[in-house]
Amino acid sequence: MNQTVEQCRKALQQQWAGQRIHLGHGAGGKQMDELISGVIAPLFGMTGGPLEDAARLDVAGLGPGRLAMTTDGYVVTPLQFPGASIGHLAVNGTVNDLAVSGAQPLYLSCSLIMEEGLAIETLIDILADMAQAAQQAGVQIVTGDTKVVERGHADGLFITTAGVGWIAQGVDLGIHRIQPGDRLLLSGPLGEHGAAILIARGELALESDLHSDCQPLHGLVKAMLDAGEVHAIRDVTRGGLGSVANEFAQGSNLGIVLDEAAIPVPEEVHGFCDVLGLDVLYLANEGKLLAAVAADAADAILAAMRARPEGEQAAVIGEVVEDHAGRVVVRTTFGSHRILDKLVGEQLPRIC
Amino acid sequence: MNQTVEQCRKALQQQWAGQRIHLGHGAGGKQMDELISGVIAPLFGMTGGPLEDAARLDVAGLGPGRLAMTTDGYVVTPLQFPGASIGHLAVNGTVNDLAVSGAQPLYLSCSLIMEEGLAIETLIDILADMAQAAQQAGVQIVTGDTKVVERGHADGLFITTAGVGWIAQGVDLGIHRIQPGDRLLLSGPLGEHGAAILIARGELALESDLHSDCQPLHGLVKAMLDAGEVHAIRDVTRGGLGSVANEFAQGSNLGIVLDEAAIPVPEEVHGFCDVLGLDVLYLANEGKLLAAVAADAADAILAAMRARPEGEQAAVIGEVVEDHAGRVVVRTTFGSHRILDKLVGEQLPRIC
Repeated sequence: MNQTVEQCRKALQQQWAGQRIHLGHGAGGKQMDELISGVIAPLFGMTGGPLEDAARLDVAGLGPGRLAMTTDGYVVTPLQFPGASIGHLAVNGTVNDLAVSGAQPLYLSCSLIMEEGLAIETLIDILADMAQAAQQAGVQIVTGDTKVVERGHADGLFITTAGVGWIAQGVDLGIHRIQPGDRLLLSGPLGEHGAAILIARGELALESDLHSDCQPLHGLVKAMLDAGEVHAIRDVTRGGLGSVANEFAQGSNLGIVLDEAAIPVPEEVHGFCDVLGLDVLYLANEGKLLAAVAADAADAILAAMRARPEGEQAAVIGEVVEDHAGRVVVRTTFGSHRILDKLVGEQLPRIC
Repeated sequence: MNQTVEQCRKALQQQWAGQRIHLGHGAGGKQMDELISGVIAPLFGMTGGPLEDAARLDVAGLGPGRLAMTTDGYVVTPLQFPGASIGHLAVNGTVNDLAVSGAQPLYLSCSLIMEEGLAIETLIDILADMAQAAQQAGVQIVTGDTKVVERGHADGLFITTAGVGWIAQGVDLGIHRIQPGDRLLLSGPLGEHGAAILIARGELALESDLHSDCQPLHGLVKAMLDAGEVHAIRDVTRGGLGSVANEFAQGSNLGIVLDEAAIPVPEEVHGFCDVLGLDVLYLANEGKLLAAVAADAADAILAAMRARPEGEQAAVIGEVVEDHAGRVVVRTTFGSHRILDKLVGEQLPRIC
């Protein structure tokens, strides 16, 4: 028995006594942060600065930190929706976590937790989607596992993928590198994934042509790295732009200013948010990234992004400042300013 | 759209039309084999011989196949049971999948799918178990993910870990290396994990001192590799010895003879199986392995195993023959012979 883990276990149990997991603990916002930084990171000894989307590994024979590893569980409902399925998500989500760490995605593992009664035709559809997404992203699914739980003890199908990628010599992306003056580049319009999922659930009497934006971003990241000095990238998924901007601000202990008028939002998503009272800045995406880049490289990097289909509508949407350290401020379209906090609670559960 | 995946999707959907997932598809036996070899392997292009517990990866800068990757999902119920918890399992199970591939386990990822309402004290307990198991096995948990699903849509907590390990130059373990004459070595007594779980469920009016045998096996494997020529190793988990022996027989297309009298089974497990009508050869373990080793190295390897606590009760329990290719035959304690088939259906669901 290790004394330190034992002490940590007891102290945490006292601190969290009587509390229970709620949906906010998986939402990408404040409560999830508290669970990760307050429980998981201390127990697992993940204490070396802000947590990134992928870990950099040291392996004998390779230079230090030249291998990246990441994992994500996917619990989206419904399993299939306009533009993609849980299968596409499970590949592209993990590919993107590697990509935004500067890694070339290479290999994926795939663990399936299936509910008794799942139609095998549906499973085949979803696995075929995974195979196609893997081919498109140039990665190989090399190992897997299958578990089945009794009817009523899971929800159709949960998929967890892990990914391994290779980081080229000299590539060093991370929130620790963000500097005052950095420009913030968003790769495209927000909210399509979140809106498409919500409409697919059929609980709203809404119709729309919205499709999930689920797509791999490693090619876009490579083009950006080739074009100029990139400091940090995150894919903008659950918790939306608001959460990623806050991770940038808190992790760097600098201020972030976002220019609302510069943030691309499709007309249809705008309307959708207006009707439902949702904030597009917290809406999930599955094929968009936010980058902090050196000011003098911003034009070149933006041009490189716009030259690719995944970055066609990329825009400079803000910058990093020394003021209001750790906070995100939005310059609204009306010219006023508002603080954009991390998402509290759960805007839309089971989005990925 | 890739034509081959599309064709595969359609052909498989026709072939499996109307069928549904049942518990046997996750049991480690025949139906799981059919799902993996009939659906998953063709879609994912895993067609290079018998599937191993871990994949060997090629990474630029390292020799080919010098990195191993594996994943497992854990859905055991109850979450905590005598001797271990889902946390110990999630670390040791994945460590062992790397170990039996000849890899030194290095890094793990950890994906949590939690049910709304899970007590955070329970979560802390289980994550602390993971941290301790990781320290004991000498691996680092480097990256993770948390998802929460609504009450009633999962069963407390599912954990998926993936693992990355490093394979020393010249190590080549795999079912393809099994040869006629190989001796089969089992590292210790069978059935403790399966029996402990079933008793912990409290549905039987049984009391016992049985504990799960959950433990890491990489140290044992290293001692075996140092002692002599090992051809293939598998950890003996769900599906039990019967399933692993069948994987050896089918994957090598050779015959396996097991000597029932030589197989160590604790007295209490024997009694438990008698009462419930269970076959100990299909009962799950979480800290045992079966190895096929060169005949002339068997004594030295057995001695090396017995010199370690994980292999104290190791025994030679059978051999590989040219007869009855692809089948496992048990020489019973009465001197008769019986064919030991793969497990059909599900002896004990949610065992790991």
